[in-house]
Amino acid sequence: MAKFDRNKHVYVSDEFEELIKDTIRFFNGTPVHQLPPSERFHGTGVYAIYYIGQNALYATDVAKNRLRYEKPLYVGKAVPQGWRQSRTAAKSNELSFELVNRLNEHSRSIEQGSDLEAEKFFCRFMILENAASAMINTVEAALIKLYTPVWNSVVDGFGNHDPGSGRYQQAKSDWDVIHVGRAWAKKCKGKANSRALILKKIQLYYKPEVKNA
Amino acid sequence: MAKFDRNKHVYVSDEFEELIKDTIRFFNGTPVHQLPPSERFHGTGVYAIYYIGQNALYATDVAKNRLRYEKPLYVGKAVPQGWRQSRTAAKSNELSFELVNRLNEHSRSIEQGSDLEAEKFFCRFMILENAASAMINTVEAALIKLYTPVWNSVVDGFGNHDPGSGRYQQAKSDWDVIHVGRAWAKKCKGKANSRALILKKIQLYYKPEVKNA
Repeated sequence: MAKFDRNKHVYVSDEFEELIKDTIRFFNGTPVHQLPPSERFHGTGVYAIYYIGQNALYATDVAKNRLRYEKPLYVGKAVPQGWRQSRTAAKSNELSFELVNRLNEHSRSIEQGSDLEAEKFFCRFMILENAASAMINTVEAALIKLYTPVWNSVVDGFGNHDPGSGRYQQAKSDWDVIHVGRAWAKKCKGKANSRALILKKIQLYYKPEVKNA
Repeated sequence: MAKFDRNKHVYVSDEFEELIKDTIRFFNGTPVHQLPPSERFHGTGVYAIYYIGQNALYATDVAKNRLRYEKPLYVGKAVPQGWRQSRTAAKSNELSFELVNRLNEHSRSIEQGSDLEAEKFFCRFMILENAASAMINTVEAALIKLYTPVWNSVVDGFGNHDPGSGRYQQAKSDWDVIHVGRAWAKKCKGKANSRALILKKIQLYYKPEVKNA
């Protein structure tokens, strides 16, 4: 039996990091569409949601999006059905509509939420299918790390689903506190963060970092 | 706004498939060690467990391993702590020992399980860390798909943990039925598969496929 040498077991791949950068470059080159998308299309993948409206809370991001869609409010993913259960890759011969369904669901949240103009929301999305669907989690994480969108970081809950009957003892999410309107969120009875606290968190998020002397 | 064209959103990457093949090639070239590993080492990644003993149930696999470690009984992964919760990549500056811990845990299961000679078990492992840790799930899935090891497919439960007090109403796993010994498995009170059924499943698994005329 060989003597143990950790280095012989470490897989090193610059290619992998390059590949992730390539996916992000591709993502940022995909066409931007109004939210919700005008067409139904099959596929899974990652997406970003951009805002160019008047809500002063997000003015810093809106300003960044003045000349191009640069700073998303939110980044998310739509993975193949059964992904979490199955250890094998998704079947490629079954059409699934997870990505467009997810974008439509987000669009309904925005329509219901207060202080958001639905027509000022846009989206980018990248379809990752077949073998490439294994990269969905990684690409989503890389985009979130790159942009730290406000609805992925300080304001929690935009991507939540109706928790369902019997589970309404949980608290309303931050997103539902500041963008009141989703019917199921009103049923959540737990102690939510105060509006004042959430607005403070958003303010701190957008405040430029104070450099140490 | 651009007219919708699905093709503009599809990320196509032959490189990704090549990269996965490269990881498997690397994996199959890593040194084989006795289980449990003789040294403690940090890192996360994927591993395979090989058997070369006398238990007739696995004779087909043992025969394949006569000249080289070719057919694993089991393939598994050890992911960074907080992986499932966190949306960001694992921190690279914290040493973690998930992979060696997992191999040690498997070794204890084998020592406790009946009809298995602990000294006839060997392992291969590949450390995937930093950015490459994002590939762990994909590489594990690819290895399982390639080898469909018996303990990943027809015999369920080898990788199980003690379910903990209050959850012993569940059934003993297939693995615990045919390799009796793990203390916590004896507490599981649910209706398990019969030993006869499990042996039948193993027999069918190893039976060469009958070709259609």
